[in-house]
Amino acid sequence: MRFNLKVIGDILGILLLINGGFMALCLPISIYYGEHDWIAITTSSLVTLGSGFLLRYLTRKKKSKELKKKDGYLIVTAGWIVMSIFGALPYIISGSIPNFSNAFFETISGYTTTGASILTDIESVPNGILFWRSLTQWIGGMGIIVLALAILPFLGIGGMQLFVAEAPGITPDKLQPRIQETAKRLWFLYVGLTLAEAIALYFAGMGPFDAINHSLTTMATGGFSTKNDSLQFVEPVIQYIVIFFMFLAGTSFTLTYFGLKRNFKKVFKNEEFIVYFLFTVVITIIVTATLLVVQDQPFEKSLRDALFQVVSLVTTTGFVSADYTSWAPFLSVLFFVLLFVGGSAGSTAGGVKVIRHIVLFKNSFLELKRQLHPSAVMPVRISGKAVEQNIVYNVLAFIMIYILVFLVGVILLSSMNVDFDTAFGAVATSLGNVGPGIGDVGPMNNFEGMPTAGKWLLSALMLLGRLELFTVLMLLSPHFWRKR
Amino acid sequence: MRFNLKVIGDILGILLLINGGFMALCLPISIYYGEHDWIAITTSSLVTLGSGFLLRYLTRKKKSKELKKKDGYLIVTAGWIVMSIFGALPYIISGSIPNFSNAFFETISGYTTTGASILTDIESVPNGILFWRSLTQWIGGMGIIVLALAILPFLGIGGMQLFVAEAPGITPDKLQPRIQETAKRLWFLYVGLTLAEAIALYFAGMGPFDAINHSLTTMATGGFSTKNDSLQFVEPVIQYIVIFFMFLAGTSFTLTYFGLKRNFKKVFKNEEFIVYFLFTVVITIIVTATLLVVQDQPFEKSLRDALFQVVSLVTTTGFVSADYTSWAPFLSVLFFVLLFVGGSAGSTAGGVKVIRHIVLFKNSFLELKRQLHPSAVMPVRISGKAVEQNIVYNVLAFIMIYILVFLVGVILLSSMNVDFDTAFGAVATSLGNVGPGIGDVGPMNNFEGMPTAGKWLLSALMLLGRLELFTVLMLLSPHFWRKR
Repeated sequence: MRFNLKVIGDILGILLLINGGFMALCLPISIYYGEHDWIAITTSSLVTLGSGFLLRYLTRKKKSKELKKKDGYLIVTAGWIVMSIFGALPYIISGSIPNFSNAFFETISGYTTTGASILTDIESVPNGILFWRSLTQWIGGMGIIVLALAILPFLGIGGMQLFVAEAPGITPDKLQPRIQETAKRLWFLYVGLTLAEAIALYFAGMGPFDAINHSLTTMATGGFSTKNDSLQFVEPVIQYIVIFFMFLAGTSFTLTYFGLKRNFKKVFKNEEFIVYFLFTVVITIIVTATLLVVQDQPFEKSLRDALFQVVSLVTTTGFVSADYTSWAPFLSVLFFVLLFVGGSAGSTAGGVKVIRHIVLFKNSFLELKRQLHPSAVMPVRISGKAVEQNIVYNVLAFIMIYILVFLVGVILLSSMNVDFDTAFGAVATSLGNVGPGIGDVGPMNNFEGMPTAGKWLLSALMLLGRLELFTVLMLLSPHFWRKR
Repeated sequence: MRFNLKVIGDILGILLLINGGFMALCLPISIYYGEHDWIAITTSSLVTLGSGFLLRYLTRKKKSKELKKKDGYLIVTAGWIVMSIFGALPYIISGSIPNFSNAFFETISGYTTTGASILTDIESVPNGILFWRSLTQWIGGMGIIVLALAILPFLGIGGMQLFVAEAPGITPDKLQPRIQETAKRLWFLYVGLTLAEAIALYFAGMGPFDAINHSLTTMATGGFSTKNDSLQFVEPVIQYIVIFFMFLAGTSFTLTYFGLKRNFKKVFKNEEFIVYFLFTVVITIIVTATLLVVQDQPFEKSLRDALFQVVSLVTTTGFVSADYTSWAPFLSVLFFVLLFVGGSAGSTAGGVKVIRHIVLFKNSFLELKRQLHPSAVMPVRISGKAVEQNIVYNVLAFIMIYILVFLVGVILLSSMNVDFDTAFGAVATSLGNVGPGIGDVGPMNNFEGMPTAGKWLLSALMLLGRLELFTVLMLLSPHFWRKR
């Protein structure tokens, strides 16, 4: 057998068990609020748990525990898809989202921590189901931490090796034994930060249910809100708290771990963090200045609006504090470009990632120098260290494929009679796992009006973006399925 | 002295003499049509010729004829700018375009063979001036043939070495002696094809003046028309003739040379030509099918509209045969993407160029394979030959910088209160040297309404795109001006 299907099946079984367990967590919420959909939640949870047990039972006799690279690609993509199918059950069974295409879109938007929604009236959805919606993002975030720090570097995806040396207790050549150790340490941090934000939001005046939900979706850089207006009409202090935690969630968890251990030297020597920080500051200043000129708002409100929206888009969270598409054409274009930034590698943020942009920029400028002195060797340096040529190559190929996938997505979506702005915005925000776009899928709208085929296209793009393109594209190449 | 300023000045002087000479060619046209602006044309021609003589006189004592790479970058960029300044004289002095920003925009749009215009009523401009307008594109096309085949490969720009081995009688290490030989051979072809098209258009029923003008701007892939409606309401046979010559002008002149010498083996083994041809065919089929479904037009008209517009955009000519932005949102997006194709290298077309796209695609797909087998060496192959790693690198860097410049351009233009579609369209079409864009600069509009700062920005982008980015960007790097 070419693939270790038994181990793959076993791992998918474990994923379903985890998901079924999390679904069960929605039961007390549903009962507490006296909602009728506790039956739907129980059914979904039992079906998911049952399927997980069945899968593990069927794959119990394992010949070998060893996983090869090809198995890795298969597990990651299949895992996200299987989770999204079972994760859609609560929506469908409860009738909150009766249509399968819509339910799948909402679920994969959750697990990929995108936050694009087809719900037109979020507040009419029962709390148990809303809690599940937030949990899908939070679970997705947990998955991504393992993916980014342990699995992708092993698979050699698009420059992920670049920061793996920095991760605590990881050796890039061994997959199995280290995952648990890394996961434990960083999940502890993830859970801790989620709790910290929930408590902060609660003390700032948010109700406990909303505080927990927004906290779950902030740390996942997901952006699902329990309110129709997202975070538009909340107290300024709540917006500042969310800004802080969004920024943290867009920072490499490894770095935050070092920061909390007071190893500040490591934090401030990290080039990706410095660029991520300075970029956010500079763009915020530009947006604030524009708002002061164009919008005639007081300074504090301008700064807060600017900071919130810039951090929300750069970290690919996608919370909304104002209708930024109504501000000025310049800001629409700027925010469209921000959809391609994508936070730090090793965070829960999606998209291209800051580190890849750094490699891209440095290499481009070096290329000008290389033309004048063709014989000189000029490697790209990150945090002072020369980056291997083949990693630079890989990063450039990643960005190119990202742009190609983006363009193909825009052409396909526009062929479904979606207009120019909307097609650009919807594809960019889905591929970058952000959430809101521009045009008809702007911050004040949702994805309900997209054609059904468009929803499936955007679902595929969310998955592609989330799994760093190569993981999914690899499965589409005939070469992958060929026997040696 | 770090730069060989005397030789640089001498070459600029020669360029001015050539331009002044071409300006004088407009005089008989003006006199024939009995137009009052013969005075403006004579004055402009004398000023240009005089400046050329003065420059050559001042630089007559040359210590060394040797040119270094750095001199090359300087000559190319300075040459195009100096030509655009003097080339604007007929517009300004005659009062046809009294505003300097507008006149400069129109002139650089000519010399870069872009074809974007600020004229709202082209037919009210005297024929002598219109002829000069067409000539600027034709002169630009001559310049580009030398640039692409002789100068850029010597300067090592973005993969231009890739096809230089194919050029007749060129060795990449020696600049001076071979330019004249190559230029003579290919200019002969350029002049011949221009004459052939003019004759064909004349016999198809176009007036002699229009036939010559459209022929001049077709071969340059420029796209300036003497009619307000461009080529919308002309006979179908005229549109087919223009399609044929646009396609030819977007083909490497070297290949056309081989083709005319009946060396068809060389033509059909050329991977760039095959891709250029097949791509045009496939996109034309898609557009024709869409038009049949959406527009409810007869088949022949749909095919002709599709073929004309696809060839016009792919070759960066920019003639208009119909308002394609009114067809369907899908086609607007598709045509926007076509602005980035850019014809073949070694033709007069602008933009990215087909050969670079081939390298990009092949490398991206190889990267997927490389991930599965990290130790295997898999070079990109073009026409069966392995491409050197550093050339692939250079091509990727070129495309990246192209995208960066595009995005910076869009952000800057939108900051001048230009809307999303228009900013994207105007920047893409200027950088790609196409002509018409989308939005307010679509095929039925012109650039007159752009803010003045925007016109200068777009002028700079036309120059950047035309000179393959690196040539101009190099001059902006402090490294370039540093002494050894």
